[in-house]
Amino acid sequence: MANIIKIGLVQHVCAEDQEQNISASIQGIEALARQGAKVVVLPELHRTLYFCQTEETRFFDLAETIPGPSTTRFSEIAKAHQVIIVTSLFERRTAGIYHNTAVVIDTNGEIAGMYRKMHIPDDPGYYEKFYFTPGDLGFAPIKTSLGKIGVLVCWDQWYPEAARLSALAGADFLVIPTAIGWNPDDTEEEQQRQREAWITIQRAHAIANGLPLVSCNRTGVEKDTSGQTPGIKFWGSSFIAGPQGEILAQCPTDKTGAIAVNIDLDRNEQVRRIWPYFRDRRIDAYKGIVKRYCD
Amino acid sequence: MANIIKIGLVQHVCAEDQEQNISASIQGIEALARQGAKVVVLPELHRTLYFCQTEETRFFDLAETIPGPSTTRFSEIAKAHQVIIVTSLFERRTAGIYHNTAVVIDTNGEIAGMYRKMHIPDDPGYYEKFYFTPGDLGFAPIKTSLGKIGVLVCWDQWYPEAARLSALAGADFLVIPTAIGWNPDDTEEEQQRQREAWITIQRAHAIANGLPLVSCNRTGVEKDTSGQTPGIKFWGSSFIAGPQGEILAQCPTDKTGAIAVNIDLDRNEQVRRIWPYFRDRRIDAYKGIVKRYCD
Repeated sequence: MANIIKIGLVQHVCAEDQEQNISASIQGIEALARQGAKVVVLPELHRTLYFCQTEETRFFDLAETIPGPSTTRFSEIAKAHQVIIVTSLFERRTAGIYHNTAVVIDTNGEIAGMYRKMHIPDDPGYYEKFYFTPGDLGFAPIKTSLGKIGVLVCWDQWYPEAARLSALAGADFLVIPTAIGWNPDDTEEEQQRQREAWITIQRAHAIANGLPLVSCNRTGVEKDTSGQTPGIKFWGSSFIAGPQGEILAQCPTDKTGAIAVNIDLDRNEQVRRIWPYFRDRRIDAYKGIVKRYCD
Repeated sequence: MANIIKIGLVQHVCAEDQEQNISASIQGIEALARQGAKVVVLPELHRTLYFCQTEETRFFDLAETIPGPSTTRFSEIAKAHQVIIVTSLFERRTAGIYHNTAVVIDTNGEIAGMYRKMHIPDDPGYYEKFYFTPGDLGFAPIKTSLGKIGVLVCWDQWYPEAARLSALAGADFLVIPTAIGWNPDDTEEEQQRQREAWITIQRAHAIANGLPLVSCNRTGVEKDTSGQTPGIKFWGSSFIAGPQGEILAQCPTDKTGAIAVNIDLDRNEQVRRIWPYFRDRRIDAYKGIVKRYCD
């Protein structure tokens, strides 16, 4: 038994010119579709620079509705190439409510569903709590013509709960658009610890839940227009891991790339038979997970 | 500010002769104590062969009470060397109730507390459900004179919930006695995927929770006396990781070893300031974690 689909991602640089960014996304999708990819994941907020480096009200003008310009554009591409696209955008839900949202567009060009980033970070250079209302759709995998896709976004990737809940709700694989990089002022040693931790924890989600994972980051250096910080050197390193956490393909830190691999979704079940973690979960003893701290 | 303690582990081979095994543990503890270690972790069930390769009622004779022979012996060593020892043993609680239990003995030789393995595996060569009643003490870190120690045992190491709950209950660091190895019939590729997954998911617990982790495995080959399987080649690889998941020291796969490193427990707080995951946990959306499956 095999249920093989080719899954890919497009790692690219983002610039001031939005049309240039969309072109980079589309070129990557088209290259992967030619190789037979059926699912393509794009980086977080790939249409714009990572504007969260400073808090400025004018940046809310970058937000758009769903459906809206981005989903219309990528719907056309999805339909033309018969590929599922996971796009990520700054969603304007109404005046005063904006989200960091990933939208899954099915091969027929229809919106299969969306995921609103649940965990919102806030630290120097990543002032996301100013822009994004925390998601209110939960960790609900999106049903598509090619399986259920568990979608998480960036900061979510540090939370085992997010991956677990997606798996328990039936995700066949996880996809994570992200925008993460180095503070150029950090030591080389600290930079490598951070990048390695980022890879390690996501591989661990695949392992803990017996499913493949696609993590798509941007690359390139983006200035902090406020001059407050030295900007962000996005560390690329986008990768695709199998259900034992094994890395199947990975982009470099500093180059654009479009990569795809064949994934046998039926292998999830084989892996869960040799590693039957789900069978033995102590659900009678996990109540503390819903507490802030057990003091 | 710094709160440095030297933490170590003893990776050794286990043989039929229990006295030989205890000597190996004690020699390692003494070597580490001479280097200034204040906490020493031993492998899972280090007093005996890994008897769970077959289901035989006579092996219940290996079980002992707490306090009992093992705790008495290691209490003396702990007191003599002023070191905290994390020992692991087959606990006889009463007729028909046996546990896989780790006991933490403080520097004064007193039992600081114990942890009964919560997640019990059962797969070819690891028939633990026959021997061990699942733990009923929860994930409660053990208070010692040198901090709160979050103790987990082997199969627990695959569950992010176990590490998270220990951290939420105030663990300063995690220790995991374990007994895991290869099926010699598996391909080299599969063996490496398994070992790497085992390392990766434990490093991820350190990362997700911003605390150090000590994982202590046995090494050596042990036969399956029933002849049903080709036995287990325990893969060693015991390691100590820092709160960013960085490996600070590691034993080889096939050799005994006693390793220790200085850990600054105050670094946990520094790491949690730059990676404030605990702040942003979506406890309002984690209810599904206590379900078997969300269908």
